Amino acid sequence: MTKSLYFEDLHVGQRFVSEPEEVTEEAIIRFARDNDPQYFHVDPFTARESMFGGLVASGWQTAAATVRHLLERSGATFPGGVVGVETTIAWKRPVRPGDRLHIEGEITGLRLSRSSPERGFATFDSKTLDRAGRVVQTLRATMLINRDPRRRETSGADDVRMKTV
Amino acid sequence: MTKSLYFEDLHVGQRFVSEPEEVTEEAIIRFARDNDPQYFHVDPFTARESMFGGLVASGWQTAAATVRHLLERSGATFPGGVVGVETTIAWKRPVRPGDRLHIEGEITGLRLSRSSPERGFATFDSKTLDRAGRVVQTLRATMLINRDPRRRETSGADDVRMKTV
Repeated sequence: MTKSLYFEDLHVGQRFVSEPEEVTEEAIIRFARDNDPQYFHVDPFTARESMFGGLVASGWQTAAATVRHLLERSGATFPGGVVGVETTIAWKRPVRPGDRLHIEGEITGLRLSRSSPERGFATFDSKTLDRAGRVVQTLRATMLINRDPRRRETSGADDVRMKTV
Repeated sequence: MTKSLYFEDLHVGQRFVSEPEEVTEEAIIRFARDNDPQYFHVDPFTARESMFGGLVASGWQTAAATVRHLLERSGATFPGGVVGVETTIAWKRPVRPGDRLHIEGEITGLRLSRSSPERGFATFDSKTLDRAGRVVQTLRATMLINRDPRRRETSGADDVRMKTV
C-alpha cells in the first residue's frame, strides 16, 4: 500500500527502501543513445575493448533511477512531486545489463522554505545497491517537497520537526 | 575542426564552450517518460498547474546534456571516452521547451590515477546557460580521462602538469 507523504510527514532518520528493478541491455542502450552515447554505453561489442570489458549503464541513468525508485518503488508517494535543487553523486561500480538495483536511503535534513510557504527542503542520502548488496552509487539530493495545504493552515512552523540542512 | 585530447593535453584553467542546442518538448517528454515521469516533465497540460506553470525538463536530462555538450559540441574529443567518478550539481532555473542551452566550463583540477597508469582524473567545473545568458545549472564533475599511450611510454609523471584535485 502506498503512503502519501507531505513535508510534514517526514522526519530526520526516516528510511526508504525500494523494490529491486532489473537494468536491461535495451534500456541501457536506449538511455545512452539520447543522453550519453559513448561506445561503452551503446555498443555491446566494442564495449568489450573498454576499461569495463562490456556494456555499462550511463551514470546519469542510475542517478535518475535512484530518485525514480524513491518516488515509485519505495511505498511512498509525494503529492505534487519532488523537485531537485542540488545533488552530489559518487559512482562506485559499473552497472551492467541484468543487474538488479534497489535503493536504501534516509532523510538527513529538513527545513522550511523561506521564499515559499508551500514547500520545504528535504535532504535525502541514498545508496544504490546491486543484488549482492554492493554499493554501485551514493547520491545525496536536496529536494523541494510540498507541504500539506490543510496542515499548513492550522499549524505554525514550530509544530514541524525540523533540522537545519 | 575537432581536437583529440588526452589527459596530457589538459591544463588547469583550460576552457570549453559548446555550441548551443535547442531543448524540444518532444525530447523533454521522451526523457522523462523513461527516467523521471513526474507530471511537470511529461504532461504539458497538467504541468500548467505545477509550481513551474508549464512543462520543464528533468534535471537529469540537463545534467547528462552538459557532459554530452563537452564531448560532442565543444570542438574537443576525448579518445576512449570519459568516465564519471563523482559530480555535484545545482539546478538554478527551470529548462523549458524551446530553450537553447550551451555550456561554459573549465578544468579546475588534474591528477594521475594511482591505480591505473592509463588514466588520470580531471575535475571540470561548468555552467549551463540559456540564450539570455542565465545560468540554469552548475555542474562539477570528476572524470577519468585516458592518457596518451605514446606519451605515457616516453615520459614520466613529472612531465605532466598537475594539480591535486
